Amino acid sequence: MAGIGRKKWAIAEGWIPSWSHGPEPEMLSHETACILNPNDAEAHVEIMIYYTDRDPVGPYKITVPPRRTLHQRFNDLKDPEPIPKATNYASTIFSDLPIVVQHTRLDSRQSENALITTMAFAGSE
Amino acid sequence: MAGIGRKKWAIAEGWIPSWSHGPEPEMLSHETACILNPNDAEAHVEIMIYYTDRDPVGPYKITVPPRRTLHQRFNDLKDPEPIPKATNYASTIFSDLPIVVQHTRLDSRQSENALITTMAFAGSE
Amino acid sequence: MAGIGRKKWAIAEGWIPSWSHGPEPEMLSHETACILNPNDAEAHVEIMIYYTDRDPVGPYKITVPPRRTLHQRFNDLKDPEPIPKATNYASTIFSDLPIVVQHTRLDSRQSENALITTMAFAGSE
Amino acid sequence: MAGIGRKKWAIAEGWIPSWSHGPEPEMLSHETACILNPNDAEAHVEIMIYYTDRDPVGPYKITVPPRRTLHQRFNDLKDPEPIPKATNYASTIFSDLPIVVQHTRLDSRQSENALITTMAFAGSE
Repeated sequence: MAGIGRKKWAIAEGWIPSWSHGPEPEMLSHETACILNPNDAEAHVEIMIYYTDRDPVGPYKITVPPRRTLHQRFNDLKDPEPIPKATNYASTIFSDLPIVVQHTRLDSRQSENALITTMAFAGSE
Repeated sequence: MAGIGRKKWAIAEGWIPSWSHGPEPEMLSHETACILNPNDAEAHVEIMIYYTDRDPVGPYKITVPPRRTLHQRFNDLKDPEPIPKATNYASTIFSDLPIVVQHTRLDSRQSENALITTMAFAGSE
Repeated sequence: MAGIGRKKWAIAEGWIPSWSHGPEPEMLSHETACILNPNDAEAHVEIMIYYTDRDPVGPYKITVPPRRTLHQRFNDLKDPEPIPKATNYASTIFSDLPIVVQHTRLDSRQSENALITTMAFAGSE
Repeated sequence: MAGIGRKKWAIAEGWIPSWSHGPEPEMLSHETACILNPNDAEAHVEIMIYYTDRDPVGPYKITVPPRRTLHQRFNDLKDPEPIPKATNYASTIFSDLPIVVQHTRLDSRQSENALITTMAFAGSE
């Protein structure tokens, strides 16, 4: 037991840039949920995607192995459906074990890339 | 009940750039409060804007539908009055239901845009 | 009583760029503690600056009027002494009333400015 | 006793850019854990590095003197082994005394640098 983490997280900002500039995959515009599973057991994670004008989609189910980090690009979520580009969304990330979640976006639409990051919002559990 | 969120939030930084560079609306300089309402009911949200040298203005009232996200640009707040550009401000965002709030700014005054984001500060409720 | 804020805050990162590029004061490289005082009374704030290899300096005393925001540039702190440029530091911001503190840096050393922001770390009180 | 800080911190995002652009060391691409020790005694800090596809490495042991800040570049961690560049990782930062931890990355791969920062996630202790 690593002694750090929460089971419920949320990211209110979401927006995947619609184009990129520079060599892929490193410079491909993307949004990522960086997940740390410090536990000695697999974490089963469910992501829900919320939109402005239609019902939420999900859960997208991912597994993070014990004592591993997974930097999950939102661009790569496919099942039940991909997230459309250039569209506002938000997400919740719920896990059966305590994890840590950080949000990052690389926007390479212009010749110089722009990066943002923030810890996700942690629920009380 | 989605089980995540708080009713009181604050953003201490606020400043809308006074000009832009690039195609609108995507590249228009703006500040945004990204709000997630994970509940099964409407969230009624009141934004107060605090200034350096005059009384606060508001509340600006917005409604976020159930299980939706609203990326509210501060630029678009009009009633009771628009927020002046190139002016320091801060904000509180209070809701009758638990929500999640994230702050973002796109500054496109220069040829390459600059992006910042952070979770807003969550009150104890 | 505005019902949001804490009395103790900390920012572990601090570094004022040593030069700037572009029109002042808007494009002057700077670090800022954005402070929101949502209370109906003055907040008396004390900032301590911590360094890598010498004793902390302070307190720098500032007052934030009731229901106002103050975007305090670290560059402008003078008493008891200015903060040297291009030097690592950290800070604590303690107040007699609950406030909200957010950290911002504009780095305009290069032709395109870089912006960062994060909520400061809130103590338990 | 400074009255602020926690003993357990985590950063879910980690990625050291593989090249740089501009004068070193200021413009060298790097990731940093900015640590503030506001206590009157030494803080003994242990950093664990988590990877995507192999066991965690560490602890990397560092000491932060009383009432000092240490801006520890992940690039400079050597013992038990350096962190590979252009590789996803995450970290936990545990201390015997309450500290404050903030995460920063400078990415200078392109002609204009990109900066990101966020407070690390604080455990409940």
